[in-house]
Amino acid sequence: MKRENILSALAASDIDALVAVSPENTYYSSDVPILTQKIIRDRLAMVVWTRAAEPVWILCTIEEAQARAESWIKDIRGYVEFQTSPVELLADVLTERQLTRGRIGIEKRYLSTHYWEELQRLLPQATFVACDRLFDKVRMIKTPEEIVILREAAQATDRAIRKGFESARLGHTERATAELMGDELRKGGAENVAFVILATGPNAAMAHPVPGDTKMEPGQILRTDFGGYFRWYYSDLARTAICGKPTAAQREAYEKLVQVQAEVIQAMRPGVRACDLYNLCKRRFGEVGLTFRMPHIGHSIGIDIHEYPMLNPQTTEELQPNMMFAVEPVHRGTEGLYHIEDLVLVTERGPQVVSRSADWEPLLTIQ
Amino acid sequence: MKRENILSALAASDIDALVAVSPENTYYSSDVPILTQKIIRDRLAMVVWTRAAEPVWILCTIEEAQARAESWIKDIRGYVEFQTSPVELLADVLTERQLTRGRIGIEKRYLSTHYWEELQRLLPQATFVACDRLFDKVRMIKTPEEIVILREAAQATDRAIRKGFESARLGHTERATAELMGDELRKGGAENVAFVILATGPNAAMAHPVPGDTKMEPGQILRTDFGGYFRWYYSDLARTAICGKPTAAQREAYEKLVQVQAEVIQAMRPGVRACDLYNLCKRRFGEVGLTFRMPHIGHSIGIDIHEYPMLNPQTTEELQPNMMFAVEPVHRGTEGLYHIEDLVLVTERGPQVVSRSADWEPLLTIQ
Repeated sequence: MKRENILSALAASDIDALVAVSPENTYYSSDVPILTQKIIRDRLAMVVWTRAAEPVWILCTIEEAQARAESWIKDIRGYVEFQTSPVELLADVLTERQLTRGRIGIEKRYLSTHYWEELQRLLPQATFVACDRLFDKVRMIKTPEEIVILREAAQATDRAIRKGFESARLGHTERATAELMGDELRKGGAENVAFVILATGPNAAMAHPVPGDTKMEPGQILRTDFGGYFRWYYSDLARTAICGKPTAAQREAYEKLVQVQAEVIQAMRPGVRACDLYNLCKRRFGEVGLTFRMPHIGHSIGIDIHEYPMLNPQTTEELQPNMMFAVEPVHRGTEGLYHIEDLVLVTERGPQVVSRSADWEPLLTIQ
Repeated sequence: MKRENILSALAASDIDALVAVSPENTYYSSDVPILTQKIIRDRLAMVVWTRAAEPVWILCTIEEAQARAESWIKDIRGYVEFQTSPVELLADVLTERQLTRGRIGIEKRYLSTHYWEELQRLLPQATFVACDRLFDKVRMIKTPEEIVILREAAQATDRAIRKGFESARLGHTERATAELMGDELRKGGAENVAFVILATGPNAAMAHPVPGDTKMEPGQILRTDFGGYFRWYYSDLARTAICGKPTAAQREAYEKLVQVQAEVIQAMRPGVRACDLYNLCKRRFGEVGLTFRMPHIGHSIGIDIHEYPMLNPQTTEELQPNMMFAVEPVHRGTEGLYHIEDLVLVTERGPQVVSRSADWEPLLTIQ
């Protein structure tokens, strides 16, 4: 199905060949995760799509055995690292397909300037255009299999945070709770924690601090923004708890945030534009008296953490069924950031929040 | 000290300004790890170095609070994501420093083609040159603080693998041992597992398979290539065990591998070229009858996993004191890859293997 989606997008475009370069689009193209593609940046793995022929996968010989064993792609070409540049093989494939003067779509938001300059030298008569958005638009509609992965990942993440917060006590450190959440996330099926932001006290004012030895104290808040890798797909949820007995002001701020998030989610129907959801959130923050400072209020999610379309003021893309969004309004309070983030599936019948258990309780406290 | 190292390299070059763009060089420049820089590719964080003035840090407003709280860099400029491109701020800073016609070093192996095209449009009269190698050469000599981090990371990784292998039994799955190693690595001080390759049976022939449900059976080998993040520095070690009673052939292959690794390490003295070590390893593999298929036999390591200089046939850089290398010969045997990898510190007095405990035993078995 992913294959058909890419081929339809290519057929509908004015492009002769599509080159997937990023780990996300290579994985989407091949169904095989190549671990080192994420951590060794120069070791490119590229899938070349053309209209008529089968796709070609160019990758380092070190990874060839895995690719041949696991992928449905049969035309695999290996380069010996340091000896042959992956871009030389790409030029060979495009030449073989008679595209030296073709119109080639390549991921300009991923391809490095170094490889770009080499590619231009090797194929000076080709026209290279950015195909990042074409892949974005293919991936923005999730397949049934992707929806299952993302829903299960979100639910496992919700359970891990809940267990972490339920075990936390005043006087505990950020680090101890973060570790427990990580253990629970892996037990829940994650290959690994992708990121764990967990902050209390003065750290709660920072967007992305590393959990440390700061202790939870009455009057503070505890905020987490937490996600894992599940079959190379991301989860990404945020929760905020009040440390000790909530004051009336804390309770009010938190309840307003939950209320505005619910209103935004309620508006997430097919045909609504991404920017309209941002503007709705911003307007409602103002009306209820919350502090709004966000460049976005959420994002699509999948193999990458921030996928297109973003819920920001610039994006006019309309919502469609089977898009999945992390919806994450943030209020900047005096004790730090109040943050809540949930995963929403867009359907013909309306939005579904898929990241909460049946007995989900909005207001969390640490006692 | 890192600051002085960068400024000396800049002073010795013909470049007017250096722009750190990758997470590695931004971290090296600022001493602050920006988590989202690694997982949200478009959200650039750049440090601009010029000869006379203080460095400037350009980053997303979302990350500004952390940067201001934690870095020694005082001139921090925030851009609102989606509204202002980070490259516009970069052009502003270079214009302010009167470098619109200057010679600007930028990381061409990291900067994406998308941002590169924007930068050329904004500063059409500047000359942009790759400064990747300049940063590589600064970072290849580790500071005393980095040596401590990398040594402790390697030792924690060695302990985690040993505990995993000592607990493993015939019939156990790859996954169970990999999970135990991950738990031990985090207990040993890692923020997270960076990668865990652990393979037995047919998977042992692949370079980078994901641990799964394959069980350890007599006659097979168990190979791991495993590393974590320690204060954003990598560890990276490999170990191979024989499942069941080793055959004479298995024992011999393994002992030869350990012997050749020892000979290569012994040759790692200041003044020796990286390529000479590769060639020595290749020659000795042939002489002792091991199968050599590696594009490299090791690499420098630090904030990035494969740092310059690589131990490959192309690299003529000479070794210097306080370089640190992961030395990892691989023999392709009938049961799969025999792989051993250790961390070596180059000193005036000779090489030091810093990744092994006092009672390190080369031949490991799973019973």
